[in-house]
Amino acid sequence: MRQSSLFPKTLRHQLSDEPSANAQLLTRGGFVFKNSAGVYSYLTLGWMVIGKIKKIVGEEMNAIGGAELYMPALVDRKYLEATDRFKLDVGFDVLGKKDRNAIYALGWTHEEVLTAIVSKYISSYKDLPIYLYQIQTKFRNETRAKSGVLRGKEFLMKDLYSFHVSEQDLFSYYEKVKEAYLKIFKRCGLDVYFTTAGGGAFTMSATHEFQVLSEVGEDEIFYCKICKTAKNKEIMDIEEKDKCKVCGGDILRGNSIEVGNIFPLGTKYSEAFDFQFTDGNGNKHLVVMGSYGIGISRLMGTIVEVHNDVKGILWPEEIAPFRAHLIYLPSNGGKTRGESEKIYDALRKAGVEVLYDDREDSTPGEKFADADLLGMPVRIVVSEKSIAAGGVEIKKREESEVRILGADKIDEEI
Amino acid sequence: MRQSSLFPKTLRHQLSDEPSANAQLLTRGGFVFKNSAGVYSYLTLGWMVIGKIKKIVGEEMNAIGGAELYMPALVDRKYLEATDRFKLDVGFDVLGKKDRNAIYALGWTHEEVLTAIVSKYISSYKDLPIYLYQIQTKFRNETRAKSGVLRGKEFLMKDLYSFHVSEQDLFSYYEKVKEAYLKIFKRCGLDVYFTTAGGGAFTMSATHEFQVLSEVGEDEIFYCKICKTAKNKEIMDIEEKDKCKVCGGDILRGNSIEVGNIFPLGTKYSEAFDFQFTDGNGNKHLVVMGSYGIGISRLMGTIVEVHNDVKGILWPEEIAPFRAHLIYLPSNGGKTRGESEKIYDALRKAGVEVLYDDREDSTPGEKFADADLLGMPVRIVVSEKSIAAGGVEIKKREESEVRILGADKIDEEI
Repeated sequence: MRQSSLFPKTLRHQLSDEPSANAQLLTRGGFVFKNSAGVYSYLTLGWMVIGKIKKIVGEEMNAIGGAELYMPALVDRKYLEATDRFKLDVGFDVLGKKDRNAIYALGWTHEEVLTAIVSKYISSYKDLPIYLYQIQTKFRNETRAKSGVLRGKEFLMKDLYSFHVSEQDLFSYYEKVKEAYLKIFKRCGLDVYFTTAGGGAFTMSATHEFQVLSEVGEDEIFYCKICKTAKNKEIMDIEEKDKCKVCGGDILRGNSIEVGNIFPLGTKYSEAFDFQFTDGNGNKHLVVMGSYGIGISRLMGTIVEVHNDVKGILWPEEIAPFRAHLIYLPSNGGKTRGESEKIYDALRKAGVEVLYDDREDSTPGEKFADADLLGMPVRIVVSEKSIAAGGVEIKKREESEVRILGADKIDEEI
Repeated sequence: MRQSSLFPKTLRHQLSDEPSANAQLLTRGGFVFKNSAGVYSYLTLGWMVIGKIKKIVGEEMNAIGGAELYMPALVDRKYLEATDRFKLDVGFDVLGKKDRNAIYALGWTHEEVLTAIVSKYISSYKDLPIYLYQIQTKFRNETRAKSGVLRGKEFLMKDLYSFHVSEQDLFSYYEKVKEAYLKIFKRCGLDVYFTTAGGGAFTMSATHEFQVLSEVGEDEIFYCKICKTAKNKEIMDIEEKDKCKVCGGDILRGNSIEVGNIFPLGTKYSEAFDFQFTDGNGNKHLVVMGSYGIGISRLMGTIVEVHNDVKGILWPEEIAPFRAHLIYLPSNGGKTRGESEKIYDALRKAGVEVLYDDREDSTPGEKFADADLLGMPVRIVVSEKSIAAGGVEIKKREESEVRILGADKIDEEI
């Protein structure tokens, strides 16, 4: 993509109304735009990042047998009333202009909706287990919407639901989801801790969370750096804290961001919707369920919180909207322009995703500042100096020194 | 994909509460599920169809310079109040549990939101034109929600917005969008008529629509079959009706489905948000805008309305969730199973999208009925009879006679 036609341009000033690093950098880079508190638009580059995260999550969900579907945001109140969750403050109500009472809740979770759907089709053990997920917009009436895209009133979420004949089968799948989640976070460049926690409105029993250490996180965990074990604060508070029981290392305390959670739901929802299956002997049982969430837009924010420096973002390889940022520096006679265009074409032909700063009216300083802010993994500069030295200047985002590379070698280098 | 693990199974009975063909066939085929009036879930196959349509629309939007973004469903009332549209009945209001007045409208269109965003970044003629689109969920408080996915309270829409320095530049792009739309509908297997109509709440001037002839449509157009010209009813009513002015053919009258529309918005929204640009001489002007919609979920319904027979759906090639439906008929000794598995693997390796009916407990009649209902373009049957005759039975969905084909020839045939 040519940067001259990229909307919007970056902002060079600090924003006074965005205290978090993710909102500050994502807004200045033009990845997102805040429409109102906790409500963001994803602009071109931001939507590309979201697309990369969705792709990774979708691939790993499909790999464990998940099938994708898409449920409505308008959740008829009948669904949430069946589990007495319609009244909860967490939700928004939806009304017509002439209505006095809410017809719908704005979907903040879909256990009820999906249980109602699945129960209409499945009645035999032969049809179980099944695993269904969606990547969809969720809504919560957050009063603390101040952490950028980490905690929004409207956000993108992947929610997977599994349906089983027994708790044993549920927990066997539960482990597979845990492994898939660890792969997802690794591909997103995140170092996560797996913790056990109590459930909130979602569940009747213990739940598990995936936590990323960060100062802006709203959770607190106890963790061991050496063997990577971790525990939720409320569990750790009633246990010994000083030394890790697994490896003997020090136990540390840290604020942390919850990027995913998994819940053994048991029969809570199947009971509410009388969702039973018949076993091989003709006996009826309630279906056993699990649910598994990942905040897609929150992941984007978390990645920025973890991977940034004073100059901007450092996107992990699989998440970056573009692999390379090709920067053209104007020269007398147009030599660098011709060379830049040639390299741009060659990289695209080789299948490299490249953002091409083809702007004529920006200074080198502005171009370099933009490249640091936008955070593509590799920066390639074409200047009179680089051509004289035999090619292009190349450096990774995290490196401070540039190297000269022949233009025909770029492809294999990146 | 193996049909044994496809959720849900098809329904064999007619549905009494779905009068339209699209809802009837899409529900029986398991493509969609009705959660409440005008509110549908897209199940696995349905979401795949939506994915195919999104891909086509995205490709054609990118080809005319469109860049994708994603705006929120929660539209702060400040946006719609700026153009006095917040009060309109068409919208839903969103409230918190403890609120007495709506905080947000649920986005039914995004002219205001995007104009407000773009106006924050663009101030010079050098930054124009720009073209931005999204594929996103829209909400309308429809009282007539009875035509399946043709007219929902919640639906998927592609909305493109363009920003220009002049009306001349707008209309030059307008023509490009028109051509892109014609390509999209052709790829979706639809024969469209381009009509001129008056604008509703959206516009201050004449608008244009893309209409597909169908008895379930809620619009009426006058059209000429020979030269493909068409006119909106209200315009035709004040003109001569008998003969087409272009070719002299008969003018016919037909109910019709509006699948897309394009609007020259002029300066209505830029005026409301004081969105001006500076020209080369330092003078300020209001930005000229256009907006361009396609109903993504409505397209799915329209395709089914146009492409169905008494047995089920006939998906156009680019829209079908799978290119081929491979049907295994059980045999004594398992010979057909082995052969089916081999063909399934070979087709997938060759990059053919294939739904594989690997079910052991369904009768041939049930399998054939499902294949007709689900509507993949090519049906391939592996039976004892087909193997004895030298391969597989193959037929296109619209054909009534099967042919025998060597298993090694399938790839080149489809």
